[in-house]
Amino acid sequence: MIFFLANSRFNIMKLWDKGQTTEKSVERFTVGNDYVLDRKLVLYDVLGSLAHVKGLEKAKILTKDESSQLQKALVQIIELDKNGQFIISPEDEDVHTKIENQLTQQLNDLGKKIHTGRSRNDQVLTDIRLYTKDQLLDLEGLLYDFCKALLEISNNSIETPMPGRTHFQKAMPSSVALFFSSFLESMLDNLAPLRAAYVLNDQCPLGSAAGYGVNLPLDRDYTSSLLGFSKVQNNVLYAGSSRGKVELEVLSALSQVMIDLSRLANDLIIFSSPEFSYFTLPDEYCTGSSIMPQKKNPDVLELVRGKCPEVLSYHYRVAGIIKTLPSGYNRDMQDIKEPLMKGIETTMSCLNIMTEIITSIRVNSEKLTEACTKEIYAADEAMDKVKQGIPFRDAYRQVAENLHRLESKEPSEAIINKKLVGGPGNLCLDKSRSRMDKETRYLKSEKERFRKTMESLMSVK
Amino acid sequence: MIFFLANSRFNIMKLWDKGQTTEKSVERFTVGNDYVLDRKLVLYDVLGSLAHVKGLEKAKILTKDESSQLQKALVQIIELDKNGQFIISPEDEDVHTKIENQLTQQLNDLGKKIHTGRSRNDQVLTDIRLYTKDQLLDLEGLLYDFCKALLEISNNSIETPMPGRTHFQKAMPSSVALFFSSFLESMLDNLAPLRAAYVLNDQCPLGSAAGYGVNLPLDRDYTSSLLGFSKVQNNVLYAGSSRGKVELEVLSALSQVMIDLSRLANDLIIFSSPEFSYFTLPDEYCTGSSIMPQKKNPDVLELVRGKCPEVLSYHYRVAGIIKTLPSGYNRDMQDIKEPLMKGIETTMSCLNIMTEIITSIRVNSEKLTEACTKEIYAADEAMDKVKQGIPFRDAYRQVAENLHRLESKEPSEAIINKKLVGGPGNLCLDKSRSRMDKETRYLKSEKERFRKTMESLMSVK
Amino acid sequence: MIFFLANSRFNIMKLWDKGQTTEKSVERFTVGNDYVLDRKLVLYDVLGSLAHVKGLEKAKILTKDESSQLQKALVQIIELDKNGQFIISPEDEDVHTKIENQLTQQLNDLGKKIHTGRSRNDQVLTDIRLYTKDQLLDLEGLLYDFCKALLEISNNSIETPMPGRTHFQKAMPSSVALFFSSFLESMLDNLAPLRAAYVLNDQCPLGSAAGYGVNLPLDRDYTSSLLGFSKVQNNVLYAGSSRGKVELEVLSALSQVMIDLSRLANDLIIFSSPEFSYFTLPDEYCTGSSIMPQKKNPDVLELVRGKCPEVLSYHYRVAGIIKTLPSGYNRDMQDIKEPLMKGIETTMSCLNIMTEIITSIRVNSEKLTEACTKEIYAADEAMDKVKQGIPFRDAYRQVAENLHRLESKEPSEAIINKKLVGGPGNLCLDKSRSRMDKETRYLKSEKERFRKTMESLMSVK
Amino acid sequence: MIFFLANSRFNIMKLWDKGQTTEKSVERFTVGNDYVLDRKLVLYDVLGSLAHVKGLEKAKILTKDESSQLQKALVQIIELDKNGQFIISPEDEDVHTKIENQLTQQLNDLGKKIHTGRSRNDQVLTDIRLYTKDQLLDLEGLLYDFCKALLEISNNSIETPMPGRTHFQKAMPSSVALFFSSFLESMLDNLAPLRAAYVLNDQCPLGSAAGYGVNLPLDRDYTSSLLGFSKVQNNVLYAGSSRGKVELEVLSALSQVMIDLSRLANDLIIFSSPEFSYFTLPDEYCTGSSIMPQKKNPDVLELVRGKCPEVLSYHYRVAGIIKTLPSGYNRDMQDIKEPLMKGIETTMSCLNIMTEIITSIRVNSEKLTEACTKEIYAADEAMDKVKQGIPFRDAYRQVAENLHRLESKEPSEAIINKKLVGGPGNLCLDKSRSRMDKETRYLKSEKERFRKTMESLMSVK
Repeated sequence: MIFFLANSRFNIMKLWDKGQTTEKSVERFTVGNDYVLDRKLVLYDVLGSLAHVKGLEKAKILTKDESSQLQKALVQIIELDKNGQFIISPEDEDVHTKIENQLTQQLNDLGKKIHTGRSRNDQVLTDIRLYTKDQLLDLEGLLYDFCKALLEISNNSIETPMPGRTHFQKAMPSSVALFFSSFLESMLDNLAPLRAAYVLNDQCPLGSAAGYGVNLPLDRDYTSSLLGFSKVQNNVLYAGSSRGKVELEVLSALSQVMIDLSRLANDLIIFSSPEFSYFTLPDEYCTGSSIMPQKKNPDVLELVRGKCPEVLSYHYRVAGIIKTLPSGYNRDMQDIKEPLMKGIETTMSCLNIMTEIITSIRVNSEKLTEACTKEIYAADEAMDKVKQGIPFRDAYRQVAENLHRLESKEPSEAIINKKLVGGPGNLCLDKSRSRMDKETRYLKSEKERFRKTMESLMSVK
Repeated sequence: MIFFLANSRFNIMKLWDKGQTTEKSVERFTVGNDYVLDRKLVLYDVLGSLAHVKGLEKAKILTKDESSQLQKALVQIIELDKNGQFIISPEDEDVHTKIENQLTQQLNDLGKKIHTGRSRNDQVLTDIRLYTKDQLLDLEGLLYDFCKALLEISNNSIETPMPGRTHFQKAMPSSVALFFSSFLESMLDNLAPLRAAYVLNDQCPLGSAAGYGVNLPLDRDYTSSLLGFSKVQNNVLYAGSSRGKVELEVLSALSQVMIDLSRLANDLIIFSSPEFSYFTLPDEYCTGSSIMPQKKNPDVLELVRGKCPEVLSYHYRVAGIIKTLPSGYNRDMQDIKEPLMKGIETTMSCLNIMTEIITSIRVNSEKLTEACTKEIYAADEAMDKVKQGIPFRDAYRQVAENLHRLESKEPSEAIINKKLVGGPGNLCLDKSRSRMDKETRYLKSEKERFRKTMESLMSVK
Repeated sequence: MIFFLANSRFNIMKLWDKGQTTEKSVERFTVGNDYVLDRKLVLYDVLGSLAHVKGLEKAKILTKDESSQLQKALVQIIELDKNGQFIISPEDEDVHTKIENQLTQQLNDLGKKIHTGRSRNDQVLTDIRLYTKDQLLDLEGLLYDFCKALLEISNNSIETPMPGRTHFQKAMPSSVALFFSSFLESMLDNLAPLRAAYVLNDQCPLGSAAGYGVNLPLDRDYTSSLLGFSKVQNNVLYAGSSRGKVELEVLSALSQVMIDLSRLANDLIIFSSPEFSYFTLPDEYCTGSSIMPQKKNPDVLELVRGKCPEVLSYHYRVAGIIKTLPSGYNRDMQDIKEPLMKGIETTMSCLNIMTEIITSIRVNSEKLTEACTKEIYAADEAMDKVKQGIPFRDAYRQVAENLHRLESKEPSEAIINKKLVGGPGNLCLDKSRSRMDKETRYLKSEKERFRKTMESLMSVK
Repeated sequence: MIFFLANSRFNIMKLWDKGQTTEKSVERFTVGNDYVLDRKLVLYDVLGSLAHVKGLEKAKILTKDESSQLQKALVQIIELDKNGQFIISPEDEDVHTKIENQLTQQLNDLGKKIHTGRSRNDQVLTDIRLYTKDQLLDLEGLLYDFCKALLEISNNSIETPMPGRTHFQKAMPSSVALFFSSFLESMLDNLAPLRAAYVLNDQCPLGSAAGYGVNLPLDRDYTSSLLGFSKVQNNVLYAGSSRGKVELEVLSALSQVMIDLSRLANDLIIFSSPEFSYFTLPDEYCTGSSIMPQKKNPDVLELVRGKCPEVLSYHYRVAGIIKTLPSGYNRDMQDIKEPLMKGIETTMSCLNIMTEIITSIRVNSEKLTEACTKEIYAADEAMDKVKQGIPFRDAYRQVAENLHRLESKEPSEAIINKKLVGGPGNLCLDKSRSRMDKETRYLKSEKERFRKTMESLMSVK
């Protein structure tokens, strides 16, 4: 009952229509929610089509005038889409069909020419690559915002003590800054996988057609460069088979981001509980209980933690789809779209809300200082004995046997004493800062380059 | 951009409202798409509320008259929902809030009494249990429809030969009936996990409140029996902690169903390809290519295959959410709803479409007979030598050394000769038939029982 | 370097030897670590072979005397194996080859007859079913031991207060008994999936040969009953295709067990940390740090938590292997053995060590009572107002606005007041006890039945 | 029974020994199979220790003479290990303990000094980083060997036709070279994730101690450079928390490699089956059946396909372990070692065997040419009509309506005509060749650099 669309009439022309009828149940099943996801691809489908039209013009398959008419009609679709007036319904099947039908309605025979030398396979590949590029650029921006928040809270808490833990037991003296900047460095290291995904994605599949090319003199280098790709994805079969491979790489990088967020969220849930009270979430970031009047719950953090397996499950799903697919396009690939899109959206929303959380969280220095009870100085004590010439293992056992004699210390002093590189007394936050500066400059220029390329594509001559 | 709801006004009363404001971004993030999923729970939330109201009446917390008024208002909501007039919007937060607010608007102070002795925790648990029960009963029906189709095609092809394969190489003579009835028996074996999930789900969590009970004399056995549950889920903390456990069991059973469907779909894709042509999918069950005019593609089968990792990924996601959750409710649990619901819907739609496929697929006896080339009789030949007294391993080597001398045989004879139980010559399809008869009778009575219980709950006195 | 076996000589006769040579690298790759895993199957392979020999005798393919000789030789192998003298080396390929070669060495031509009407496919299927049955019976015993420990600690702490939590915040008054018995009931509910797996596993695949039967009059009902199976797995192709399906069901049930253990371990890690000190792990269940003399770490609990994703990953691995396998045997299936065996072993070792932990953990009543701070009574307070006639939602808001006025209470009183079924004041531990009694009796009889059947199989006449 | 080590005596000194006893069952459970895995870390543990000793000398904690003695003893351990004489047994707990105990036995008090300023946490982190680096360098070498085999077979089959498929239906003319070089390009694209993993791994954690540094003047830049790392992993807590993060990245890259291998294996299984016979696996790369004398099975390919979910499952296992771990070391992390090591070994063995397969597979040109039946030219035909001025969509429908009139063509001509970049007539294999040349040069220099650094570390002055 849930999956039957009421009253849908599937009487719109399919791109593969040859005069036969198809079972309604088959149409419903095969379209699924693809038409909904495709709403996010309208802009990118038009951009890909603009490049393809210019390519057909260069190959003299379209005249300059035909090309110009098609481009104008395509740019209009972008405008309609911006205003929410370009609606894809289930009977449209997908964004590609909808656009071709629209062009044919508007321009008659000319509309029927746009699919020359192209398959929906390379078309959707191009759409998703452009979509992914655009999203990854935005996501990287959100990642730096989050890193800035972590850098700031670290900078403000360099001398704020915090018991360092191992095995969830109190272990050694540490600092709030060491805690938050550990997540900062982890998050910055996510750039490596994110860039690997970006590079794999930054290849132009346009012109690969159904995975076997076409017998037309299309200039793939030309269209690739119009679309701002770093290079053509060379082998036309690989272009098709790589559907899923690139998405998997994106989801792998997103998984790393989500794991970091999940671990931070989990730590903060515990450290903001009444037994710790190291941190306080402002009231406006908490929600309540329907039955317990006193509750102030860290729902945001719990949801972030719960969304980590969501993104991981998208990775698993895509890997599961592609791992034994025969070479060439297979319809299973349609279902790669949803995990990719949802993975990106979920990660972006989590980065966003966690930036707000880190920006507004309160650090309770008093509670943190109190929590630095004397047993956390045991290892320091053993090292002090080492400095007096006692072999470490003997020093260790002497301290172990005299734990009751350990004296309480000034935690900030213990922090400052750890002067080795990256230790609580020498955090080297500048390394992260200069890395962020460099990377944000790069991101800005990459975004600018992408924006200009797209604008130039949309300017019809 | 994608995840910000435009112009949403969050000025509706939350159940945990204490006069403080919450960040809009937090509200958006925490509600997510929960309000959409909750549309499917309206009926079940009302049913749970009806039982709770009757329980409050029995506990003398509500008068008979108050109870009656609340029940009438609740039943009206079912009517509104049936007609699509009970809309939950993001600012409503969830179905529970929407309904309580509706009752309070309509009945003033009386509406404010309904949440007595209840938490949203046990409320949503109850909703999901009822939803799951209802869906599992429907799904089992679809499973039998599919089994019937498999039984019929098996019955019609008992003597239709088909080369049996191992390692995807031709191995031994087999039959179309052996092939399809192997999936029939596998599908029937899925009843064991499905029933295990059903049993776990068939426990009433109502009255567990926030996982710690309440200091009111609520009769949990009474409300459980009103709702048709087999038993009360006893320990109130376990009731809360089992969120996700039951769903995981459901998804595990669904995974088995989907794996069977995926394997059958994969076999049929290969066996209906031009190189095999064992089976033909009717035109109306195929789709075409946008660029290749000759294509007739088995998209339905490919999508079924691709949806198997989807359902598996829901299992992974739920396991990932719960596996280290602290005891008691945690907000991460909200995100268990989507994988459960989607897992059920996807499996049902796949069962449904595969039943259509099996019902309409054509068996090409000629091609299948041709495919039974002589090498597939080698093992039979070795066994024949055994009958003449040669030790098997020697017979094996003799046949191996004289493969070129193997003679072609009548495949149907080779099939008939395999008379051992469950062999191609003795399929014992009646075992499956009588199992299906017994199980469908049970299902029918269980469905009837559920329907009557729900009706009786809705009849306000 | 790691994966090349030094000096291995592969000159032993393979069951599929036809006089050709195979690349050494191929032999090494295909055997993998299978020969190691097969050491655990020797007993079961012999048992299956004993039944097969008796079946061949009944079918008059072996004489009574031949049968008797083979049975004696087989029983000797069990003895050798018991004493660690039956070693499978990589060049033996697998347990089946090793045993057939041993019999042929010992009995000449007679040894060459044992594989009549059998394939390694149905042979290994039978081995694994017997192995799995034996292990599941043992595992269920360990599960009850664990449940007994949970029941005892619950019984001893019915009035010991503990703050109940939701969202990891203090929520409502609870008890140590409610906490532990919530895990008890969850663990007992794992019987449903375990039994579903047991039922699927309890079908005899012997006689299905390579998935297509044989042209010999083998009596499958007879051998199935000799081996103590509940029924023959009917369709011979399904018998082969179900490799992985049954294992998946076992791993799904084990995942539920491991998730429960993981959650309990995670709770205990937190609740035994210095900030809580609700529980104390005895020194002999803790390990230390190599650098910090004061540390007492709950390594056991952490490892149990870390082994939950291990078992889950076996589930995903098996699902990943089978989900698109063509019908009939495929060599990929060999790699199902390891995840099954490791999944069972890991779960058994975790159940075992957690039973020790629960048996020896100390409950710190004083700390637990102190932790019951006054805010946890807020919901009770609201309910008290309800009893005075105030609508719940108003009562809730009144309490919320006057949280500072909440008074501290006697926690044990708050516990006792929750008299509804399954609440802290009415835990109904007897329900679990009687369930355990019933189930352990059943398990004992099932074990006894299995033992007697195996003994009778081994008694050669 | 399985998990109890017989007769183990745990009376060797633990690094955290303080005179208390530990339960034997706890020791067995916590050690698990760690001692076996640690055998592969001996070399790397010694290398890390050599750098640490030199660091202690630089910090004047050890005298030049003490340092020299320790270095000599450490280098001896490498020799023992090479000769298989350095055995870690369960009672040794792990490689770190074994080595420290060995040094203490040999050098008395001096041995007890080596752990100064170090924890097993940063020690094992360093071991695993060095191990991973070494393995990744080897693995990349195997990857290029595989790529070379793919390049060669592609070069030799540029004009060998092969029907291109979509939806597993025949689609368009293609070539054997297009097929194999599609996998070549995919494999080369795996360098992006592999290098991302390499970069994350190439950071020195030594000196981070238990995640909170030590109060000693250790020069982390110095030891990092001695060990050949590109940089110090700065934040000491991040160093500890990144256990699992780096491994996950490695496993993600390996998953991509395995997915490519699995897809190729799956294609080859199908395309070498009798119905296709496009390719023939040489006899020495096939195995047989125990019951069917005629069988020649592609077991190697099936096992490669089955090992893809194995490696994927390691990814999920590691992700599952770390995703909610509290900051700082947790014992769960011990279980990250096995999935990492097995993932690397499995991938290396699969790359290796697949290189052999590709090198020895036979291409059956005749069968491939025959398979190019006329319907695969339909799209070409439509494009030809386009060249005559017919709008594509009309040309498509004209061809579709006259499929029976399609004429057979010379496939090699159809291949040659596809001249666009990356099409079958213009494969641009030189792009891959020059990429491989560049990358292998880089790999060679990186390996050389690593070897020299390690040698220099081992040369005691």
